[in-house]
Amino acid sequence: MVSKNQIKLITSLQQKKYRNIEKLFIAEGTKVIQELLQSNFKLQHLYTTKEDFNEISIVEKTIISEGDLKKISALSSINTCLGVFRIPESKIIQEEGLLVALDDVRDPGNLGTILRLCDWFGITDVVCSQSTVDIFNPKVIQATMGSISRVNVNYVDLNSFLKNTSLPIFGTFMDGKNIYNQKLPKEGIIVMGNEANGITENIEKIISERLSIPRFGSLQQTESLNVATATAIVLSEFKRNC
Amino acid sequence: MVSKNQIKLITSLQQKKYRNIEKLFIAEGTKVIQELLQSNFKLQHLYTTKEDFNEISIVEKTIISEGDLKKISALSSINTCLGVFRIPESKIIQEEGLLVALDDVRDPGNLGTILRLCDWFGITDVVCSQSTVDIFNPKVIQATMGSISRVNVNYVDLNSFLKNTSLPIFGTFMDGKNIYNQKLPKEGIIVMGNEANGITENIEKIISERLSIPRFGSLQQTESLNVATATAIVLSEFKRNC
Repeated sequence: MVSKNQIKLITSLQQKKYRNIEKLFIAEGTKVIQELLQSNFKLQHLYTTKEDFNEISIVEKTIISEGDLKKISALSSINTCLGVFRIPESKIIQEEGLLVALDDVRDPGNLGTILRLCDWFGITDVVCSQSTVDIFNPKVIQATMGSISRVNVNYVDLNSFLKNTSLPIFGTFMDGKNIYNQKLPKEGIIVMGNEANGITENIEKIISERLSIPRFGSLQQTESLNVATATAIVLSEFKRNC
Repeated sequence: MVSKNQIKLITSLQQKKYRNIEKLFIAEGTKVIQELLQSNFKLQHLYTTKEDFNEISIVEKTIISEGDLKKISALSSINTCLGVFRIPESKIIQEEGLLVALDDVRDPGNLGTILRLCDWFGITDVVCSQSTVDIFNPKVIQATMGSISRVNVNYVDLNSFLKNTSLPIFGTFMDGKNIYNQKLPKEGIIVMGNEANGITENIEKIISERLSIPRFGSLQQTESLNVATATAIVLSEFKRNC
């Protein structure tokens, strides 16, 4: 049984404002919750429709009906469990090796997929502009498939962060140098831009290395790659010769 | 003004069954509709909230209210126009160069993103298993961003199609050969599998070349890449030395 007040609190966590006030976020589905439990995330409470998660004490767990789960879920497709977790203190950004910087990425699915890619390619630090979608948005949490527990994400004033770094700064542009022909370093910051508008003008000025992913299709063709697939190609290029 | 019968017809096209009966599909938003108009797709009717699309005769166009557009739209975010197009006859598959074969890809967003990638990398033929999500699903059409007009998609018995091809067949597996070290040919079929289960057992048996995308992260990490980002990396590898 979930009380009205609990429903109100949990559904409020779908909004960034209330996540910031309560310092809580929600994660749904066994896989994601298990991954968060195994890492440093602190569970506040778990709601599940099954007699599972035996490692969690009865104080921290409520068995609820599917109907109740639906009331508190942020997702359209049904899961079996929802965990309310505490938002951890942000860790200090490690300015070494490769970092990814996101400049105004708005789509939760894209951010989640990019974090999953960073995890795959061993990138542990991601910096986001303040306008980038919130990492604790339920749809982002879902799309990360648990990678959020292994990638450190910080929201910063991207302009001043990039101005103050000593690392080389890379970005992809239509007129950049063919990424396939470049000797790419083991250290640097890779900036990926907004879904519709790419990298913002202010940030573009700070980028020291302009790269491009060549197109191979006919002339009349897609204008751009999706930001997550472009990130996949760029990270693969940086890492393939490591 | 949209009549009740029109609303019924148009919303029925959100289902594959009715798309097949009516031989019609819907596309939303100026960009996608413009791209379809510029290519071989035949418009049956356009519904728009603006005085735009001047190239389309008044017989084929109805100016409607936002409220009416919402009633016929398949998307959650509001657009300004919806086009009903005829489903074209499928073209013959060109078994030359690189082809992509999709084995049970279920997510509309993933299929759309993969078609956009194929378009970018100049791959003109995609074959899909019958269980792969329908290309004329409104969410697929949306995610292709118009690439559907330049990529030829056929639904086939994938097992017998692959058994009868003379091209080498590639697939990615955890135990495959490191894709970064392989000399990849200019001809072949690249098989990408289901979001949760990868390539099905029957299809796996037919695959002649087992590849893998190396992981660079820590040991405890994401089990797999999203199928669209994996496709991005594989296509980039096949094309980068062309």
